[in-house]
Amino acid sequence: MKIAVLGGDGYCGWATALYLSSRGHSVAIVDNFVRRLWDHELGVETLTPIRPLSERVRVWEELTGRTMEVFSGDVMDYDFVASTIQTFRPDAVIHFAEQRSAPYSMIDRKHAVFTQMNNVVGTLNLLFALREFSPDCHLVKLGTMGEYGTPNIDIEEGYITIEHNGRKDTLPYPKQPGSFYHLSKVHDSHNIMFACKIWGLRATDLNQGVVYGTITDETEMDERLVNRFDYDEVFGTVLNRFCVQAALGHPLTVYGRGGQTRGFLDIRDTVRCVELSCLHPAAPGECRVFNQFTEQFSVLDLAHMVQAAGKKLGMTVKIDHLPSPRVEAQEHYYNARHSKLVDLGLTPHLLSDSLLDSLIAVAVKYRERIDSSVFLPQVFWRESRNVRTRQTPVAAGAVRP
Amino acid sequence: MKIAVLGGDGYCGWATALYLSSRGHSVAIVDNFVRRLWDHELGVETLTPIRPLSERVRVWEELTGRTMEVFSGDVMDYDFVASTIQTFRPDAVIHFAEQRSAPYSMIDRKHAVFTQMNNVVGTLNLLFALREFSPDCHLVKLGTMGEYGTPNIDIEEGYITIEHNGRKDTLPYPKQPGSFYHLSKVHDSHNIMFACKIWGLRATDLNQGVVYGTITDETEMDERLVNRFDYDEVFGTVLNRFCVQAALGHPLTVYGRGGQTRGFLDIRDTVRCVELSCLHPAAPGECRVFNQFTEQFSVLDLAHMVQAAGKKLGMTVKIDHLPSPRVEAQEHYYNARHSKLVDLGLTPHLLSDSLLDSLIAVAVKYRERIDSSVFLPQVFWRESRNVRTRQTPVAAGAVRP
Repeated sequence: MKIAVLGGDGYCGWATALYLSSRGHSVAIVDNFVRRLWDHELGVETLTPIRPLSERVRVWEELTGRTMEVFSGDVMDYDFVASTIQTFRPDAVIHFAEQRSAPYSMIDRKHAVFTQMNNVVGTLNLLFALREFSPDCHLVKLGTMGEYGTPNIDIEEGYITIEHNGRKDTLPYPKQPGSFYHLSKVHDSHNIMFACKIWGLRATDLNQGVVYGTITDETEMDERLVNRFDYDEVFGTVLNRFCVQAALGHPLTVYGRGGQTRGFLDIRDTVRCVELSCLHPAAPGECRVFNQFTEQFSVLDLAHMVQAAGKKLGMTVKIDHLPSPRVEAQEHYYNARHSKLVDLGLTPHLLSDSLLDSLIAVAVKYRERIDSSVFLPQVFWRESRNVRTRQTPVAAGAVRP
Repeated sequence: MKIAVLGGDGYCGWATALYLSSRGHSVAIVDNFVRRLWDHELGVETLTPIRPLSERVRVWEELTGRTMEVFSGDVMDYDFVASTIQTFRPDAVIHFAEQRSAPYSMIDRKHAVFTQMNNVVGTLNLLFALREFSPDCHLVKLGTMGEYGTPNIDIEEGYITIEHNGRKDTLPYPKQPGSFYHLSKVHDSHNIMFACKIWGLRATDLNQGVVYGTITDETEMDERLVNRFDYDEVFGTVLNRFCVQAALGHPLTVYGRGGQTRGFLDIRDTVRCVELSCLHPAAPGECRVFNQFTEQFSVLDLAHMVQAAGKKLGMTVKIDHLPSPRVEAQEHYYNARHSKLVDLGLTPHLLSDSLLDSLIAVAVKYRERIDSSVFLPQVFWRESRNVRTRQTPVAAGAVRP
């Protein structure tokens, strides 16, 4: 298939682009590299020394003979989106090209507004371009499990059948997102559902859990193909951060009691879920939702697992409980359905000791690059203005209550 | 109370500002007059010859001795919003300052993007300004009944208790909005709910039905206080348009079979609902939702009522069924709860013969100003680009299928 990967220079996007290319699909990467800019803004770096996209693509071609076309531009620019769709004529578009960090969206008003505008308008531009130039193209959109929040009932995949006062209907699952970023994804979901209804577009909304890991078969082929590995409080996902902390002998930074339970998945499953969605496209007019994760853990569960894995490697791993910078339930019911991708053929990579070993090993390998000042939360949900300048790091422990 | 009316130069906003002022509240009007610009863009005019806001406010002061402060600016401009809040220090902010037409949002991509950006960012700016400078101020936000769509179960007021797999929770009511405009209000609702949760703001989200009428006690005091009366396909609400059509002997333009059922209310109830909300504010951290309408009708019901009222006045009123330009169910279940405002003391003005007589009388009075070319739909939901230039009117009947 011809598949365009929007945001293909990012964490999930790069792994996905490589995997789809390795599977014989014709892949185009669409990116404006703004994710690299945000590292400079925040004064942080990926643990792994990633190469410029031009080099990544050249190395991939040298190793495999497979080419990936690159379209350099911004999804906020409609002319760019439209010309990309017209030029590449994809069978499927994978849309990773959004600002994906909850803390980044909570820094202050400008970051909240930027996140919602960037994500919502980017997706609107894509929907209009598909309607205009490629109405049969399948949109595979990355949403997030965080759209649902933590309701006290089971979470279904996108829709729920409700019986009420003797009548019944199947309706979009109620959403309780927990940051301006998560809200942007909820806005997207509503917009996409509507576009499918009025224009007959086909879409798959992947409500992805928290991704961990960095290694895929493809990135392992050559150091220059290495993927991002973020461990800072803004863009780092929790398990990756814990592994880096363990490698450095820094206490694991659990927010609050750590009872926050979420869905998680290995990045090797992210890439397979995306391909499965492409190979089994939504029908015209259909907006289907898959919950894309493989296992549920509480944050404290993860901390204990990293602690145990560290112990096996001879490390002493402490766990610190920090006041949570977020506004979220620290103990709650959580049971989310996630069978649709398994039904399509996903065989999950479950979180195991060996994966944790390898993650900690990556962190040890790049230990010299670790900046421990970026572990601690500096973005607080209850503030409307956070001073988030990693260029002047706070002393460890100087966490605001 | 000190009450800021954002969008106070518009249809609902002007009537509300006058009413609140007449009731002794200290009122500020905040507007950027862009609604008047859209008339020029579309080549349409309000049936009634409205005066500039500066004159309206001067006349009001001459007649009543009551002053209304005017803040001229755009809610997209955060500095303006912040300084307005800091200067006026309102007890309540009524937020009407949004693009409020579904067809306008469906003209093309630019109008869709503008509508969502304007509405979502304007509301975000307001939320941040309140958080920063006036966290105890009560936000009264105009939403729309159109956020709910037409589910096959009863519509509740904002939240619904769901029993599912033996567990139970009260969650935001699922939304199925029917235009990019209605979607913008759903986005707002989610953002406001979140801001109340994390910052303890207090908000009332008024999910308003379709407003009809133009006369309130205050606007009747002087011709120069007359309110807008829109009857064009883009900004005109359906009952107002029908009355103008009846006055001109033009067939009533019912979309499709006319089984579309909605909640309706008299503009005299809009202003009272807003005051009731202000007088009984939400608690800190509370985001409550009131369904603000008084009666349900189908579009065909309304057409028959206007036909009957016209007959009494000696008019022959025909009904035309046009292909619906929208994507909507033409027959459906509809039963929406609307008791919370009644519980606070609302005594509805129900739609009566005498109101229809007076509405038709207004239309007859300004008959010379009617442009019948603006009745027919030119914005079609299934198009991604509509050529909507009222400057070159289509011939009557030249409706695209």
